[in-house]
Amino acid sequence: MPDRPHVVIVGAGFAGIECAKSLKGSGARVTLIDRQNHHLFQPLLYQVATAALAAPSIAAPVREVFAKRDDVRVLMDEVCAIDPEAMSVSLASGRKLDADYIVVAAGLRAIYFGHDGWRRHAPPLKTVGDAIEIRKRFVSAFEAAELLERDADRTRELTFVVIGAGPTGVEMAGAFAELSHKTLRAEYRHFDTSEARVILIEGQDRVLPTFHPDSSARAKRDLEQLGVEIILNTRVEELDEQCVALSDGNRIETRTIVWAAGVAGERIGASLNAERTKAEKIVVGADLTAPGKPNIFVAGDLAHFIDPKSQEPVPGVAPAAIQMGRYAGRTIKREIRAPGNPREPFWYRDKGALATIGRNRAVAELAGRRFGGYPAFLLWAVVHIYFLIGYRNRIMTMLQWFWQYVHFDRSARIIPTPERGCESGSASDSA
Amino acid sequence: MPDRPHVVIVGAGFAGIECAKSLKGSGARVTLIDRQNHHLFQPLLYQVATAALAAPSIAAPVREVFAKRDDVRVLMDEVCAIDPEAMSVSLASGRKLDADYIVVAAGLRAIYFGHDGWRRHAPPLKTVGDAIEIRKRFVSAFEAAELLERDADRTRELTFVVIGAGPTGVEMAGAFAELSHKTLRAEYRHFDTSEARVILIEGQDRVLPTFHPDSSARAKRDLEQLGVEIILNTRVEELDEQCVALSDGNRIETRTIVWAAGVAGERIGASLNAERTKAEKIVVGADLTAPGKPNIFVAGDLAHFIDPKSQEPVPGVAPAAIQMGRYAGRTIKREIRAPGNPREPFWYRDKGALATIGRNRAVAELAGRRFGGYPAFLLWAVVHIYFLIGYRNRIMTMLQWFWQYVHFDRSARIIPTPERGCESGSASDSA
Repeated sequence: MPDRPHVVIVGAGFAGIECAKSLKGSGARVTLIDRQNHHLFQPLLYQVATAALAAPSIAAPVREVFAKRDDVRVLMDEVCAIDPEAMSVSLASGRKLDADYIVVAAGLRAIYFGHDGWRRHAPPLKTVGDAIEIRKRFVSAFEAAELLERDADRTRELTFVVIGAGPTGVEMAGAFAELSHKTLRAEYRHFDTSEARVILIEGQDRVLPTFHPDSSARAKRDLEQLGVEIILNTRVEELDEQCVALSDGNRIETRTIVWAAGVAGERIGASLNAERTKAEKIVVGADLTAPGKPNIFVAGDLAHFIDPKSQEPVPGVAPAAIQMGRYAGRTIKREIRAPGNPREPFWYRDKGALATIGRNRAVAELAGRRFGGYPAFLLWAVVHIYFLIGYRNRIMTMLQWFWQYVHFDRSARIIPTPERGCESGSASDSA
Repeated sequence: MPDRPHVVIVGAGFAGIECAKSLKGSGARVTLIDRQNHHLFQPLLYQVATAALAAPSIAAPVREVFAKRDDVRVLMDEVCAIDPEAMSVSLASGRKLDADYIVVAAGLRAIYFGHDGWRRHAPPLKTVGDAIEIRKRFVSAFEAAELLERDADRTRELTFVVIGAGPTGVEMAGAFAELSHKTLRAEYRHFDTSEARVILIEGQDRVLPTFHPDSSARAKRDLEQLGVEIILNTRVEELDEQCVALSDGNRIETRTIVWAAGVAGERIGASLNAERTKAEKIVVGADLTAPGKPNIFVAGDLAHFIDPKSQEPVPGVAPAAIQMGRYAGRTIKREIRAPGNPREPFWYRDKGALATIGRNRAVAELAGRRFGGYPAFLLWAVVHIYFLIGYRNRIMTMLQWFWQYVHFDRSARIIPTPERGCESGSASDSA
């Protein structure tokens, strides 16, 4: 049926997946495009980076999600340009798609504030590949330390720097500290793994700057109890594979750095020719479209939407992305069925904010209440399990997770492709 | 205690792990060296390559296995040379270890019969990294096919070639065919995944050449029912990223090739200055040592041991490696406790041979009996679960496995790091 309206969704994150799900029964043809072949349950990605979970446990092949939806076509491709006048989308494979509706849910990318060369030494935590790379560096540092004789060499190898103390940075630093100071202690013979330093660097004056100051104070205390060194009001001036130089003049010798500091809207947003914030998010109105482009919705982290209730921008959290994607899908569905009616505005339901710091520690902000410790951790666990429901692998992941919780198990800390050793010509033949 | 005898074990496969376990309470210091940080449950590696299991499910960090054994030191390092006269071992990290006993359990490597350049286009299945690479190529082929317009391009993309019809090749070909012709069918809109061709190439006149001809015939029939095309009595003359050229003059256009054809002893075996077979295995006597080197044991696939009962070489299977490793460990332990007594000879207990072909299909050879079909598959499953017991992750892996068996689930088919798309400068910043 060539006359069925065509909806093109850019990105298979929370917003894109929910949008496609909401279009069920709409009569539209849906094309869902992502450069990855899997939807990623991003809030648990740090658990892959810290060897608590295997990557497939938090990633579902996008095709599998829509296997029973004949109206949904999934393309593993990259969107290189959107033409808002012609309503077309150009793909890296060379194809061009005409669309009646475009939903741009491309999300955010890590940015390095003009120092793109830092990425190699300080990877971000955005993709499964990133998480596996960070896990490899972290685990390899301990393996290298076991082989080193000189204390100074070992100290550099065992210093882990996390840049940026938002939720991702806090979760990473907490997990690194727990692993170093507890889980791994029994396994090395040549040194005490609690020698390892975990340093969290933040440019603002507190950790979790988007949370209430009370939550920040609590998170700071919890992190310090876990052994994390926190450096506030300090920026990174320079970094390379040996060292991080700070704005306070200090230099930290380290070989393992994680970048959790800067994000900006994906570049594809530029091709919409719409107003963008400094962080390259697209400014959208009450119906999640940019002015003058009624058939192009922007959903998820890429959208800059001012909540009319709070007059604050809706935060970049999974529940917001899910609500936006669902809104875009339902609005399109309604218009296809009954064209010409005015659109209802998007309405954001604040589900609160949560960050976990380690085993049995978290901070929660929920309906005006703030709390921490074990109750917050329990809430965090329940919420994440609840959200996983609706995706594949949920039962297995819950079990795996429960298992590692009970057993302090970090069995996922395997290094798939170690660097080669002996100098002779064995490399080509014995990898 | 500097006077405790030092046992150096090269390799943390089945033989090395079992040897270290058997040395418990021996009074020796044990150093276990592997270039990987994990022990791999190799018989299930093809399930990682075919997206049934996550890599951490079949790999246990070596340190974790010996966390409670203060007498065992684990080094993630590569052994570059063994000096049998000086009884010392040189490592890639530059260190040199003196040993009272050396157990060489380094296993086999893939060989390309003088065409080392083929490795890039036709990876082997030896390590977790290999399995993830093969999975990536297989899954990416289907994603690419969904984007292609021309039938000929799609045909090349959807032709999978497995070279070598030993157990690994048979298992890979069977799993590829099941995935293509069954599991993935519902998920692609642009083509029928049962178009995919899986071609198994073998130089000898039957599949599973080390099994009884009846088992080979049964396996061939089962594979053909799954849709595998089998080409016998044929060798590969040339291959590149586009094509495989065969000795019968045919050329197969393909972009996904798996190498399961040739193995030889790891190169470190050469430094023992002992007699080696054509396949570079080390010829050992009744006590698993080479003549004149009583304190250097060779265990596992690297050992060429003629079973005095059958007058045949002991096959390269996990039970043989486990028995050899255990023998070496127990023999050393006995000598440390009561030096000077003659050694008992190694005695191989044949546990039979098993190869699985697909869901509910396998061939088994056990105590002179041969059978196939569901009973063989069930035996295969029970044996592998039994062997997994004794390693970590066993319960989770069993559950995961049972889950995927019941649900035809291949959720592990994620591609961690896809190739980049758009040509513009986004690559550095949006990976």
